[in-house]
Amino acid sequence: MSEIAVIILAAGKGTRMKSRLHKVLHPIAGKPMIEHLLGSVDAMSPTRSVVVVGQWKEQLEEALSARSIDFAEQAEQLGTGHAVQQCAGALEGHAGPVLILFGDVPMVSPETMHGMVERLGADDAPGIVVLGFEPEDTKAYGRIITMGDDTIDQMVEARDASPEQLKCRLCNSGIMAVDGARLFGWLDQVGNDNKAGEYYLPDIVRIARREGAQPVVVKGSEREVTGINSRAELAAAEAQWQEHKREEAMDNGVTLRAPETVFFSWDTEIANDVEIEPHVVFGPGVSVGTGSRIRAFSHLEGASVGEECEVGPYARLRPGADMRDGSKVGNFVEMKKAVLGAGAKANHLTYLGDAEVGAGANIGAGTITCNYDGYGKYRTQIGAGAFIGSNSALVAPVTIGEGAIIGAGSVVTKNVSADAIAVARGEQKQLDGAAKRFRDKKGKK
Amino acid sequence: MSEIAVIILAAGKGTRMKSRLHKVLHPIAGKPMIEHLLGSVDAMSPTRSVVVVGQWKEQLEEALSARSIDFAEQAEQLGTGHAVQQCAGALEGHAGPVLILFGDVPMVSPETMHGMVERLGADDAPGIVVLGFEPEDTKAYGRIITMGDDTIDQMVEARDASPEQLKCRLCNSGIMAVDGARLFGWLDQVGNDNKAGEYYLPDIVRIARREGAQPVVVKGSEREVTGINSRAELAAAEAQWQEHKREEAMDNGVTLRAPETVFFSWDTEIANDVEIEPHVVFGPGVSVGTGSRIRAFSHLEGASVGEECEVGPYARLRPGADMRDGSKVGNFVEMKKAVLGAGAKANHLTYLGDAEVGAGANIGAGTITCNYDGYGKYRTQIGAGAFIGSNSALVAPVTIGEGAIIGAGSVVTKNVSADAIAVARGEQKQLDGAAKRFRDKKGKK
Amino acid sequence: MSEIAVIILAAGKGTRMKSRLHKVLHPIAGKPMIEHLLGSVDAMSPTRSVVVVGQWKEQLEEALSARSIDFAEQAEQLGTGHAVQQCAGALEGHAGPVLILFGDVPMVSPETMHGMVERLGADDAPGIVVLGFEPEDTKAYGRIITMGDDTIDQMVEARDASPEQLKCRLCNSGIMAVDGARLFGWLDQVGNDNKAGEYYLPDIVRIARREGAQPVVVKGSEREVTGINSRAELAAAEAQWQEHKREEAMDNGVTLRAPETVFFSWDTEIANDVEIEPHVVFGPGVSVGTGSRIRAFSHLEGASVGEECEVGPYARLRPGADMRDGSKVGNFVEMKKAVLGAGAKANHLTYLGDAEVGAGANIGAGTITCNYDGYGKYRTQIGAGAFIGSNSALVAPVTIGEGAIIGAGSVVTKNVSADAIAVARGEQKQLDGAAKRFRDKKGKK
Repeated sequence: MSEIAVIILAAGKGTRMKSRLHKVLHPIAGKPMIEHLLGSVDAMSPTRSVVVVGQWKEQLEEALSARSIDFAEQAEQLGTGHAVQQCAGALEGHAGPVLILFGDVPMVSPETMHGMVERLGADDAPGIVVLGFEPEDTKAYGRIITMGDDTIDQMVEARDASPEQLKCRLCNSGIMAVDGARLFGWLDQVGNDNKAGEYYLPDIVRIARREGAQPVVVKGSEREVTGINSRAELAAAEAQWQEHKREEAMDNGVTLRAPETVFFSWDTEIANDVEIEPHVVFGPGVSVGTGSRIRAFSHLEGASVGEECEVGPYARLRPGADMRDGSKVGNFVEMKKAVLGAGAKANHLTYLGDAEVGAGANIGAGTITCNYDGYGKYRTQIGAGAFIGSNSALVAPVTIGEGAIIGAGSVVTKNVSADAIAVARGEQKQLDGAAKRFRDKKGKK
Repeated sequence: MSEIAVIILAAGKGTRMKSRLHKVLHPIAGKPMIEHLLGSVDAMSPTRSVVVVGQWKEQLEEALSARSIDFAEQAEQLGTGHAVQQCAGALEGHAGPVLILFGDVPMVSPETMHGMVERLGADDAPGIVVLGFEPEDTKAYGRIITMGDDTIDQMVEARDASPEQLKCRLCNSGIMAVDGARLFGWLDQVGNDNKAGEYYLPDIVRIARREGAQPVVVKGSEREVTGINSRAELAAAEAQWQEHKREEAMDNGVTLRAPETVFFSWDTEIANDVEIEPHVVFGPGVSVGTGSRIRAFSHLEGASVGEECEVGPYARLRPGADMRDGSKVGNFVEMKKAVLGAGAKANHLTYLGDAEVGAGANIGAGTITCNYDGYGKYRTQIGAGAFIGSNSALVAPVTIGEGAIIGAGSVVTKNVSADAIAVARGEQKQLDGAAKRFRDKKGKK
Repeated sequence: MSEIAVIILAAGKGTRMKSRLHKVLHPIAGKPMIEHLLGSVDAMSPTRSVVVVGQWKEQLEEALSARSIDFAEQAEQLGTGHAVQQCAGALEGHAGPVLILFGDVPMVSPETMHGMVERLGADDAPGIVVLGFEPEDTKAYGRIITMGDDTIDQMVEARDASPEQLKCRLCNSGIMAVDGARLFGWLDQVGNDNKAGEYYLPDIVRIARREGAQPVVVKGSEREVTGINSRAELAAAEAQWQEHKREEAMDNGVTLRAPETVFFSWDTEIANDVEIEPHVVFGPGVSVGTGSRIRAFSHLEGASVGEECEVGPYARLRPGADMRDGSKVGNFVEMKKAVLGAGAKANHLTYLGDAEVGAGANIGAGTITCNYDGYGKYRTQIGAGAFIGSNSALVAPVTIGEGAIIGAGSVVTKNVSADAIAVARGEQKQLDGAAKRFRDKKGKK
């Protein structure tokens, strides 16, 4: 297959989102929608990718700065044809297929993209491949009238269509693959003699036919060509993504007791025989090993959970949390940049930040690693088999040796040797009858 | 428009609720259902409002004591006509429209109420306006047979209707607007010669026609005339309310990643570009400013969240929580009657009650304001830029000066000067090898 | 009615589950699916119960070891007829009805089972009763062709059915009740001359007819005969169970503000006028008394909640948690093997394990019972009316007397007398200006 170029139209900021964030940067499953599209585009290995920017272009340029992408600016919003025209410079000399996509139609599958490009390269050289779809409700979508086979006879806007044409259920998604050697020549002939005064990309189909090309249609699913213009549509796209991911997880042998209450991210990796209770949220960057159990109300992001672990309920694993096999994090426990060794436990009301906990260690309820002094973050090292008594504060940097025991309620500021017991707390004093006197004074029993 | 009176029938406690709380006091979106109705009634600015009470009238009288409402008692439950008759005294001399509503049909919109009153006042002076609706499923609803226009020919109970009449899809909600000058005269003619021995309000339509009036029908939506008689119907009404509120929030530029898992209260105010993660509950009295992020598993009630704040996951903001712009409340943190100054942070496992935290202060993990001595509540003041070390207890009343630092694990009982460092903890002692000896004694390695 | 025997087929481990746990041991509502079935079977009081095991039989034998059940092994998977044949020994001499069920079709109701056995014992002695159902979508289910009444003319696999037969909506669930005196004689005549080379149980219908019996069909609901072969089907069965349980709870006078977010276990008991907020999970073994309120994000298992209690938000009650009337457990509080006396409160960030708290006691925020020393668990006793200051650690075994007060931030290692005040904390020291010097040194203001 010849070299492929991709154009993504993203010049409109998306007024209906009522946001200061550019529409195509709003996330689905924890990833900006345009990144979902670019992820699928990557599978095509395009030699050139151009994003057409306009309003708030700085946001897009920054968000995509790590990608090798060209930006073409469409200063005025004069229609999709005009938008594509701005890419003429970036695509100069490109004679292979040009795939034209929309930043706010992010779920087009790699298979569909591939099918379009393949059809474009077929022996009959159609010049243009339009992506059509047959929606449940055809609404006011433009219709694609074919010659019976996949050849396009005509494309009509719903408002210009005859009653007969409106019966046609094949609609135009706007997405196209076009022969790069002819694209800009055809575009030059597109006019703006219409109500909005805009240059419409689909007009090239008519022009191409006039010049002897035979544009064809390829069908995609309604789901993949759905555009996102509002927060409600964003939520609907998220819901669709989640539903698909949940089914995939269950197929792979993950138990979801209440699938509709579990939310994954785009890159969540769950092994088989993991059980996920209701009400669990996965942020980006999480993997969970075989046989582990993620209990209700847990929130994981950027975390690695080994095999046979127990997480939660109410566990919060933040980026850098690394639970080794058989370890356990219980309720109201937060981990961040911390390793919990194999078989180690932190079961209750604990904060483990910038810490390394050895295998088999037991972290008592209410333990806090004091990792921050207002300026820097410092590390806590806890040796294998150590026992940290409840309600202890470990003031980092500090090292607790292997097998050491920390008395409950201690504030540990100095290193503790292996196998030692350390205690740091005040002496207990009792004032007999004082509570009664206090109550009497308060005038109540 | 002439002066309006409103009658709300609420004499039945609602046996099917199986509750010791009067049916109309069960809440939807955090507000008793009758208050939803009264809220809409308020928009009509009625000069008199009468609630007909019967069973458990004390509950209603107390719950509505702050409103300027008259109560009329229906000692025996002898039907809706009888119930309205009990208002004769309270409405003596009232000649304007009387709107008759039901306490367990709380979602009638102000627009619908207004439309009914307006139609009642039209030149043809119909005398009675009945609120009809066309449900999905006409069930056993009474039917309204019209003359073709909006004039009512006849109202028939489903059980008395002919097959032809049953085909009519226009049903009677029971809600009416009636000419106050004639209402009680018509009511006097209503009999109880029926199986149940009750006086039915809809009978006045027949009587009015007999006396030369031309009762008409106005249509409402099925949603607004749905009655609530059981906890399942209560849950359905709540679900409908929530769905509407979520759509409204998204339209206003709020991101709801999983709308179906977020629950608002009747008065929740969310600015645009707020992001709300899955599984969040808003109790009454919450406002959230632009650009803030409410993370998963957060619970807010009676709280003010400024702009650009971060809340949660697992944040609990209780009444009087006041987060200023750019402040941050993290996981397993509770705030109550407390101000968190601009840019201040309380990120982990903390209780801030009856406290004032200055701008930019940092509250370490596990910090507890000890605000209660079993009798009174006392205040904690923390100055701007102060740094509270982790696992500290601040025993109120106490003041931490600006820029002061509290060492981790301290129990602070005395005020701390600005820019001072205060530490209050025991000395650390180490018993070498003692942990090993302890384990040996326990007979295990 | 004569003595009943039950056969449950469970020889297949369930490959599509992709699990190392036997399919029939996967739980619905917190109980293995086969236990749901056995629970319904119990209502029939069978004299003999045989479970046919094969793959992973050890798992089943262990899981059901407490039940008086015989196991018959089907070493090779040669079809359902072959499976039942393995029970010949265990049922020797049994001449009453034999009910044949499937371990992965766990929701057959006791009423349906009873109806089948009753029909089998009717005067016309049909010999076999097949459980049929009429699904929404008949898919590829085998059809039951009747003689017009309930007599079976023929049972056909979908692939062998004529177009006329496919129109029949009565499908075969596979479940049967068979005359025990004739069952094994018929089974001996079942052949395996088919594509799969398997012995099919339904073949006995044909054989029985040949021998003069008149097999009949009894109808069940689609819901109760749905089989579970994948995690998605498991989740669907769970969802159906939960929906039913929620409706039942609401009918009984429980308020569920958002029913779809509340998850019960098979044995959850909730009294009337309990209010359950959104996002609550009940593990097995929970009862909640009248007038209590379970707030959002709470997780209860093995817990007894009295009347008029308040639980949560974010309360975690673990097995052995026993909240007496009017007690209160607040946010981020965990209870395990602990009694909270009448009217006692533990409102914030607390761990109560192996503890007994007297009536009216107040447990301050951040209190931790230190119940574990790495080897054993020890008890904490807190007397009635005691007041535990915030952020205290109570090192068990320890007793706090009635009415005693513990100063905030104390580490209590010795018993405290009734009415005494005890304090155990370090002395507060202040270094004037030190915080400023620290900041200056760090080079920032």
